[in-house]
Amino acid sequence: MEIAELGEFGLISHLTEEIEIKNAETLKGVGDDCAVLAYDGERRVLVTTDLLMEGVHFDLQYVPLKHLGYKSAMVNLSDIYAMNGRPRQMTVSLALSKRFTVEDLEQFYDGLRIACEAHGCDIVGGDTTSSLTGLAISITCIGDAPADKIVYRSGAKDTDLICVTGDLGAAYMGLQLLEREKSVYNAQVREARQRGEDLASLPPFEPDFSGREYLLERQLKPEARRDIIEALAKADIVPTAMMDISDGLSSELHHICRQSGVGCRIYEERLPLDYQTAVMAEELNLNVTTCALNGGEDYELLFTVPLALHDRISAVPGVKVIGHITKPEFGLQLVCRNGTEMELKAQGWNPIKSEK
Amino acid sequence: MEIAELGEFGLISHLTEEIEIKNAETLKGVGDDCAVLAYDGERRVLVTTDLLMEGVHFDLQYVPLKHLGYKSAMVNLSDIYAMNGRPRQMTVSLALSKRFTVEDLEQFYDGLRIACEAHGCDIVGGDTTSSLTGLAISITCIGDAPADKIVYRSGAKDTDLICVTGDLGAAYMGLQLLEREKSVYNAQVREARQRGEDLASLPPFEPDFSGREYLLERQLKPEARRDIIEALAKADIVPTAMMDISDGLSSELHHICRQSGVGCRIYEERLPLDYQTAVMAEELNLNVTTCALNGGEDYELLFTVPLALHDRISAVPGVKVIGHITKPEFGLQLVCRNGTEMELKAQGWNPIKSEK
Repeated sequence: MEIAELGEFGLISHLTEEIEIKNAETLKGVGDDCAVLAYDGERRVLVTTDLLMEGVHFDLQYVPLKHLGYKSAMVNLSDIYAMNGRPRQMTVSLALSKRFTVEDLEQFYDGLRIACEAHGCDIVGGDTTSSLTGLAISITCIGDAPADKIVYRSGAKDTDLICVTGDLGAAYMGLQLLEREKSVYNAQVREARQRGEDLASLPPFEPDFSGREYLLERQLKPEARRDIIEALAKADIVPTAMMDISDGLSSELHHICRQSGVGCRIYEERLPLDYQTAVMAEELNLNVTTCALNGGEDYELLFTVPLALHDRISAVPGVKVIGHITKPEFGLQLVCRNGTEMELKAQGWNPIKSEK
Repeated sequence: MEIAELGEFGLISHLTEEIEIKNAETLKGVGDDCAVLAYDGERRVLVTTDLLMEGVHFDLQYVPLKHLGYKSAMVNLSDIYAMNGRPRQMTVSLALSKRFTVEDLEQFYDGLRIACEAHGCDIVGGDTTSSLTGLAISITCIGDAPADKIVYRSGAKDTDLICVTGDLGAAYMGLQLLEREKSVYNAQVREARQRGEDLASLPPFEPDFSGREYLLERQLKPEARRDIIEALAKADIVPTAMMDISDGLSSELHHICRQSGVGCRIYEERLPLDYQTAVMAEELNLNVTTCALNGGEDYELLFTVPLALHDRISAVPGVKVIGHITKPEFGLQLVCRNGTEMELKAQGWNPIKSEK
């Protein structure tokens, strides 16, 4: 059977369905942003891991290694916050092909260190080895949380409010922008080669990013939302369900609804969008709502809170209520600007299903 | 600067020298078999991670995926035992190119699960994604140990006895055997192609492994030494220093001596060797002592105990005393069978320094 038939989540379910948990300390295994472990006392240990492959998750033609280090750390830190935890330790493994120099690695580690220092996370180990082609990055982040504050994907209840932080779709727009400028550059190089010109004689390539800085930053330097986790704690709000938005809002809502056994209704007009995202979508002739729903890599938080907390959650800066949880029989619905309803499809980025 | 100039351990030291530990819970970061974390209570959390790349760490032409899953788990379990801990949880990340099927992955997970079940370790998460070429495997293992029982590399003292478990060099010999049969097979295919023959008409290839089963098993199905850790606990022995032998005895002795600030003297005649290892070395015209010292992938334990425990440690089955710790000024010495002394060089397998 081809792996693409199952997709990432189908494959994981298939491979892990027979796994029995044997240690009483393992409170939660596969299936959330982190595993949850109970060692002594009232604190729980959270574990999350990510494997990033060159050519699939990042393109070194336009991603500086320092940014790559920063982002690699952020995507893992974000998973710890998504459980309402605090990151504490990180292991970092790299497999490098021969083209990388020590200076390249220093750049990568610089970015990694800046991210970890900003989030109070210690780099405690890893593995450095070689690869035949490309760069592979594997990061595991360990965090902790008091037992009664951990938030799973499975706790959303009918009538709960659905909240998202920041704005959506900008990281995806940043990626489109980088891909467009890369195509322009590659075309120039190709044409120069066809004319038999020396590539060194080409004028320096100056990509046109003016006025699009925010989109680039969202793609190259995402920020895990520690500030939101702290603001929620200060406001004494523990969400009923939470996850971070890495594959796109629509895909993540599907996870929460499936794992909580509920439906949802969200409103197109309430999706938080940045002005630059809208302008760029217009320019590329893309539907901005589709980008916000399915773009991915936002690393914002998606969470639910009881309806009774409406006023308190509305007062938290950076949080927007975009809809509410419904009974499961209503499915996942998007209420469009014109009042029509359509079913929310999970078309998020899926590295296994996509044709790479 | 080229990475090969620094080598793996030089590179890691270079990249991590500026890392400051910020969490009081991080008792030990980079530099041992595992990181050591103190959450609540008297138990410590151990973390180790490995990144294995196709073509560098394994060759799917002769390693069945089930064995690969088993071995990938074992090398991480071995690191937890090397701290005198018990494995508890594991995360498993895979990056797959398009040639893998769901059935392939099932084979891999079968091996993984058998290893984890035998060692009471829960698979709690991971990441499954795609790669442009080859298979990448990243495993993180979490274990625990009572605070006062953890054994670091840095605790060896002058006059301590140096002990190893099992026998050495057999996994390396198994690799040589597999490589030899692969060459024979590839040559047959090449010649058939040159003669313009249909490859399907070739007689089935029957590698000659008779009488070498132990060498193959050591290479394809290594066993982490949980039994030794349990036997030491039963005998109430806590080693002063310990690590597992993954890169070769010589390389690991260098780690222990450097981190403990000591020297050592080991005896060639006391190195534990299997009969098949010796026969195979003879056949391949290799020095069997060199293979035992530098072969790697044995996943046996190397540890030191106080001299006073000589009788007690000698009574533990599967453990052999091969020498003793000395003052640092004596360096690392091998006493040969003929009585001459030579300096022990660390020529262990180093994926970054080697020419791949």
